[in-house]
Amino acid sequence: MTVTTPRGFRAAGVAAGLKTSGGPDVALVVNDGPDTGVAGVFTANRVKAAPVLWTQEVVGGGSVRAVVLNSGGANACTGPAGFQDTHATAEHTAAALTSANPQEVGAGEVAVCSTGLIGERLPMDRLLPGVDAAVGSLGDNGADAAEAIMTTDTRPKTTVVSGDGWTVGGMAKGAGMLAPAMATMLCVLTTDAVAGSATLDAALRAATRVTFDRVDSDGCMSTNDTVLLLASGASGATPSEAELAAAVTAACHDLAQQLLADAEGATKQVAIEVVGAADEDDGVEVGRAVARNNLVKTALFGNDPNWGRILAAVGTTSAAFEPDAVDVAVNGIWVCRAGAAAEDRSKVDLSGRDVTIRIDLHAGAAEATVWTNDLSHAYVHENSAYST
Amino acid sequence: MTVTTPRGFRAAGVAAGLKTSGGPDVALVVNDGPDTGVAGVFTANRVKAAPVLWTQEVVGGGSVRAVVLNSGGANACTGPAGFQDTHATAEHTAAALTSANPQEVGAGEVAVCSTGLIGERLPMDRLLPGVDAAVGSLGDNGADAAEAIMTTDTRPKTTVVSGDGWTVGGMAKGAGMLAPAMATMLCVLTTDAVAGSATLDAALRAATRVTFDRVDSDGCMSTNDTVLLLASGASGATPSEAELAAAVTAACHDLAQQLLADAEGATKQVAIEVVGAADEDDGVEVGRAVARNNLVKTALFGNDPNWGRILAAVGTTSAAFEPDAVDVAVNGIWVCRAGAAAEDRSKVDLSGRDVTIRIDLHAGAAEATVWTNDLSHAYVHENSAYST
Repeated sequence: MTVTTPRGFRAAGVAAGLKTSGGPDVALVVNDGPDTGVAGVFTANRVKAAPVLWTQEVVGGGSVRAVVLNSGGANACTGPAGFQDTHATAEHTAAALTSANPQEVGAGEVAVCSTGLIGERLPMDRLLPGVDAAVGSLGDNGADAAEAIMTTDTRPKTTVVSGDGWTVGGMAKGAGMLAPAMATMLCVLTTDAVAGSATLDAALRAATRVTFDRVDSDGCMSTNDTVLLLASGASGATPSEAELAAAVTAACHDLAQQLLADAEGATKQVAIEVVGAADEDDGVEVGRAVARNNLVKTALFGNDPNWGRILAAVGTTSAAFEPDAVDVAVNGIWVCRAGAAAEDRSKVDLSGRDVTIRIDLHAGAAEATVWTNDLSHAYVHENSAYST
Repeated sequence: MTVTTPRGFRAAGVAAGLKTSGGPDVALVVNDGPDTGVAGVFTANRVKAAPVLWTQEVVGGGSVRAVVLNSGGANACTGPAGFQDTHATAEHTAAALTSANPQEVGAGEVAVCSTGLIGERLPMDRLLPGVDAAVGSLGDNGADAAEAIMTTDTRPKTTVVSGDGWTVGGMAKGAGMLAPAMATMLCVLTTDAVAGSATLDAALRAATRVTFDRVDSDGCMSTNDTVLLLASGASGATPSEAELAAAVTAACHDLAQQLLADAEGATKQVAIEVVGAADEDDGVEVGRAVARNNLVKTALFGNDPNWGRILAAVGTTSAAFEPDAVDVAVNGIWVCRAGAAAEDRSKVDLSGRDVTIRIDLHAGAAEATVWTNDLSHAYVHENSAYST
């Protein structure tokens, strides 16, 4: 039920000593073809880690035979030397795969992803032997790979979505910094469908737009976010563009919900459903403004259905709405109607982990959902102690 | 050293039973003239509390003889009934002042400010007798007024700035929700200078633009923010526009720093100095992005000079800069040069309350400073428990 479920893929996850915990920290996903098509979506942060800069170029080349990923270091803000490290990792991976494989792999077909602390060089003397070990243990080991990319994640995230004779598999990591246009999130999706680059790109963009892009755990945007979709064509089946997009969207949705469920220190998993919006962009803008509002998020941590803070967050947006027309429900209780108090807020049950905030703007027929978490003591603790 | 230091002003602060603590909760500031000029700056939130909607109209009329302020309830998101409450408060205050004063006061010359919980009606049966009590105790009681507007503030905030034969006095409240274009912040400034409405308006806008507008404690924008500047002309002295603007700016700066010093649960007071910006707007955008970044703020709470998170926050902006050219210093130590690690981060001393983050974009000669706080356990605690 991982990246190795679709035919044509092998994977590995090994411990190379990058993490102080000694846990697995180098993952490898290999596409044995026959096709090597790829699509990628990357962080919108202008400060991009070296592996992002490298992998954007590789994906632009249109063919990826391997993805090498490491936890234990983001290789971000490391200057030209950091970029050289990424390049060397790709070269080393390509050479090791060429030695082990019947076919030649070029460094330009090796994507690289890194995650961990920003601003420190990777220990290449440990990473490169780790790559060798990963090449040596390639097989139906998607679960190992998913474990090796974890940082503060408490559990690996994998998914599989089945089509008619073809399959999409995936793995992801990320437990904080989830933000617009994603977050310190790495995701590798594989499929054995037959699909050209344009189809893969369209499917991946359609999927991330309504899944990862609408997860906003703490409003912070990472330097390393990468989502890759690799296609082997090994099933021989050619789904329609719509079928492929639907399957990739389902896979991304599943992984995004797993990320939220494991977000750093969160006690609530919150869906902000904006309805009655003039258009979808308005819905997303309103949902995001609520998702990022620290006063709303701390109120939810305190089991407080504080609709006034929700309305104040809505009021910071440029979306079409009249303040005196907005309705807000928390877990099904319409605590605010027409911009003022309505049903008794004591009826709201916030004892569970799942929270749904529904905001009706009464400005149109469009809607959008944004997902977030609460802001807890544990979030502060984990993020104040992470690097010291 | 308060709003009653300039000549021509009286004030009062009384307990009317709006706050559950029983502390003072109704404040009154009266301008006895001879002038009654006024300027106002209000929240940019589109969800505006009833007193904001009312007071915008009053200020537009060009004359204010009294400001009545209450804590214990924001009167926001209370619908048409809430607006009627504000109107009734102004009418009641005008009538009480007319009875007590030699001169007639109209409701249209009474500004109203409220602060406290959103979404609940004010207990008018307690507020109106409180207004009567305040009128009865008017005098040189600016300190009482400053105390009566406190909510989660731990201490009152007042200031005085002296000109040549004229003075500016002020009081403010606010200990959270400080945000762009201010925050649940009420501020009343008084001056005995002779100044027309246009001069007052220019002075107040110049002042708030570089003080309250650049304080971003938690990125949340209130429904009630109001800053008023009243001029009595009682000194007979007419400063130049520049002199008045400088004094009002100094008063606002002093009050803004007091707000930061008292921000909810904060352990750090952080100045983000952006230099080398292409223009001032870029500097403000970068400063604000860093000020709002929860990962930066939690790192500071943990005494962690995590410059990587700072760079990642800078990367989310549209300001002119090259990622490989940015320098970052924390408390004087240049931990990042040219987008990569530089001086040893262990040299950074974060043991004190004051933190200075200096970011050199190397993109021009403009600069701007934005002030914020860290994100602490106490912030989460205070804001998760506030209304329950």
